[in-house]
Amino acid sequence: MNPALPLLLSVMLSKNGPATERCDLPSTLAEEIDGYRPVVRRILSAFDYGPQSGTTYRALAEFADHFGHRLVGSESLEAAIDELVAALRVAGVDRVVTEPVETPVWLRGREMAALVEPRHVPLDVLGLGGSVATPPGGITAPVLVVRSFEELERRSAEVNGTIVLYNPEWTSYLQYVPYRTKGPSHAARYGAVAALVRSATPASLYTPHTGMLDYMPGYPKIPAAAVTVEDADMLSRLAKRGSNVFVHLEMSNNHTHGVSRNIVADITGSVFPEQYVIVGAHTDSWDVGQGVVDDAGGVFIGLAAMAQLRRMQLRPRRTLRLVLWTAEENGLHGATEFVRRHRDEMDAVSLALESDIGTFAPVGLTTSGGDNTTACILRRLLTLTAPIGATRLEPANGRGSDVTKLEELGVPASVLLTRNERYFHYHHTRADTMSALSSRDLDLCAAFWTAVAYVVADLREMLPRG
Amino acid sequence: MNPALPLLLSVMLSKNGPATERCDLPSTLAEEIDGYRPVVRRILSAFDYGPQSGTTYRALAEFADHFGHRLVGSESLEAAIDELVAALRVAGVDRVVTEPVETPVWLRGREMAALVEPRHVPLDVLGLGGSVATPPGGITAPVLVVRSFEELERRSAEVNGTIVLYNPEWTSYLQYVPYRTKGPSHAARYGAVAALVRSATPASLYTPHTGMLDYMPGYPKIPAAAVTVEDADMLSRLAKRGSNVFVHLEMSNNHTHGVSRNIVADITGSVFPEQYVIVGAHTDSWDVGQGVVDDAGGVFIGLAAMAQLRRMQLRPRRTLRLVLWTAEENGLHGATEFVRRHRDEMDAVSLALESDIGTFAPVGLTTSGGDNTTACILRRLLTLTAPIGATRLEPANGRGSDVTKLEELGVPASVLLTRNERYFHYHHTRADTMSALSSRDLDLCAAFWTAVAYVVADLREMLPRG
Repeated sequence: MNPALPLLLSVMLSKNGPATERCDLPSTLAEEIDGYRPVVRRILSAFDYGPQSGTTYRALAEFADHFGHRLVGSESLEAAIDELVAALRVAGVDRVVTEPVETPVWLRGREMAALVEPRHVPLDVLGLGGSVATPPGGITAPVLVVRSFEELERRSAEVNGTIVLYNPEWTSYLQYVPYRTKGPSHAARYGAVAALVRSATPASLYTPHTGMLDYMPGYPKIPAAAVTVEDADMLSRLAKRGSNVFVHLEMSNNHTHGVSRNIVADITGSVFPEQYVIVGAHTDSWDVGQGVVDDAGGVFIGLAAMAQLRRMQLRPRRTLRLVLWTAEENGLHGATEFVRRHRDEMDAVSLALESDIGTFAPVGLTTSGGDNTTACILRRLLTLTAPIGATRLEPANGRGSDVTKLEELGVPASVLLTRNERYFHYHHTRADTMSALSSRDLDLCAAFWTAVAYVVADLREMLPRG
Repeated sequence: MNPALPLLLSVMLSKNGPATERCDLPSTLAEEIDGYRPVVRRILSAFDYGPQSGTTYRALAEFADHFGHRLVGSESLEAAIDELVAALRVAGVDRVVTEPVETPVWLRGREMAALVEPRHVPLDVLGLGGSVATPPGGITAPVLVVRSFEELERRSAEVNGTIVLYNPEWTSYLQYVPYRTKGPSHAARYGAVAALVRSATPASLYTPHTGMLDYMPGYPKIPAAAVTVEDADMLSRLAKRGSNVFVHLEMSNNHTHGVSRNIVADITGSVFPEQYVIVGAHTDSWDVGQGVVDDAGGVFIGLAAMAQLRRMQLRPRRTLRLVLWTAEENGLHGATEFVRRHRDEMDAVSLALESDIGTFAPVGLTTSGGDNTTACILRRLLTLTAPIGATRLEPANGRGSDVTKLEELGVPASVLLTRNERYFHYHHTRADTMSALSSRDLDLCAAFWTAVAYVVADLREMLPRG
């Protein structure tokens, strides 16, 4: 999930219940949807203790163990993209192409941090994506700890020459993200020489979380890194006691530009080949862990949906298009290029599905960009997936990352909702590995994704737009 | 908690309910216990939103931030012991001494591990306490993954020249510990050149857990380290797929001997000065994190109990003795020396209390070494601490670490029970920091500890022995 664009992000643990508008679908449409019950049951059965049970986890694990994480600009990302193209060919889709995406490239160098006053303690840090390097030999400076931008403003006279540590209370990712993205520039404005931010998580086992920063024009670019919750707490306690708190920070990152690739793979529609349902996820990841929670899990349930429809020889009326975006983490560059290149097709997209907030046990979908009838159609469709417990329809409330680029052009979109309470435990950390996922949950996500994509792509009419 | 002696360790998440023997305490004894209700209420009130509320966390945090972890042989441990002695003097105990303890000393050197085949991936490891070093330049060898000692035996012909990875399923710490302690020797027996073990935890965020190993006589001593759950899973998957899995391991530890100190501090009994209730915990820790879950939290609630009784000018009939053992983690050397030196007093110990499995919200006590009357007395006493929810009495089932050295000599013992479901998330890791503890929970533990220690030390009679 892209961390750089908070306004596009979700209140992930949203408490919003299902949209509760009254539904009066025409009986022919209701009957049309209900008519998919047998095929949906066959799809669900294939994954739910059927022949496909366990295959998604196994394939994803093999991929993750072979390629590891996939930072934009890395060889592993491009090799992984080649592998996914090959897998789609094997799956028998009608067409698979890659489309070039120009993107900034940021490569992490050696990183080292330590508390040096009042005593020496090594600090595990992860530099923020896009951060400039420190001067060779690093920076040693006193630490100023603030809980909020308000406190920074209030104490702006103390900032010059310090390393500012943002230690905001965790309430939600949405509330947190501005400290990571804009915090460095806000601190630099008052003369800070570097910035540290508390890691973005409600739960830590001394776990640093990286993510993108976003330098603001007109301010010096200062190096910035995330510290663990534990170290943020410690530094904060030391500062409160009036200790002189000095930290040494050393980072040697590298900025260039490069070209990566989106993957676009189609099962061509039997009746409306130039209308689309898009199933999306992103191939790139941060450069720690295995990048499977964010977002190879999403990639592999999309792949599983395409393969399963070919296996069942199900060809929907309109084209089912799997889009695997690149360069999501560093700013939605893949999705931006996709909509630029495919702008003329956007009016013909019935629905864009995205999985990028975890492939834990599926519970339903968000909806945005449609009207009341769209929501009613989706709600009726979700009665078909009741056997696996995925029946919930929620307003999007900003959830969605790459797919927001399509939403901006009026495309109705739905994001996969899962039991993702633990999502931010793993997000952008070394702990984003296969151990965080369950084979059973991936099966259910793959089953759900296949069923939803197929039915929406096969309905006689496109979904209405709002 | 000492990890080297599994038989002395607990099934920490024991499902055993309270001992359910029928209680027919003599009415005078029952009334005597009930008579403490007012003083217990005063004690609880002092910590529970009273004047002592928050003080234990603040003092512990200052201690932890100032001294950090406290490995046996480190300067920080000895400086911390000096500080605790000074704090006990300030608290106004009648007597505080240190007693020398000879102990092996193991110092971690540089550690580095990486998967080198089928691809290069750095592995975060923590060498096991007591491990020998690798040869300079390290060891590179194929990895043999086994789930159990049974599998090692079955595959003994494959072991020679390999690095054996023990990857047992997590069921309980008790089931796990033999792999860490005896695993290296079992593997060396068949020619392994090093051993890795899966970290001991039900929950990981790429978190390595250290702990003691125990070389068996007659086998080569091979270097051994813990890998994270995530890496154990990955290595296991790679091996199952038939990949050639090679790991590089480099460790440069140092073994010597040294002298540390137990702390013994008394509030002298008003009527039976030569009878004792002991309150125990250990000062040393592993050399990662801050060593507060294991076990500075236990130290500080003991300290809080002593200080609070002096503050309230409560002097129990028999001597209340705080014992802060050293050298627990590397094999209960402090407790062993304590019982050697104080053997003659062991018959005069009414009860030994220990806190070493976390200072989370208190729920009650274990009991061992007493008879049915002992259990009934404790159960009646625990009705007095109902206002803070600590009323449970459970059979010890092996719970206890240093205190087991006293139990072996017939001393009745009770271990502090807390809501410690998360104990093994932090145990022996970099995440064992103040962030794992709560001020409120420490207040309740301190209140409970003060009340229990005072009442048992003040009862007219010693607790009966079994």
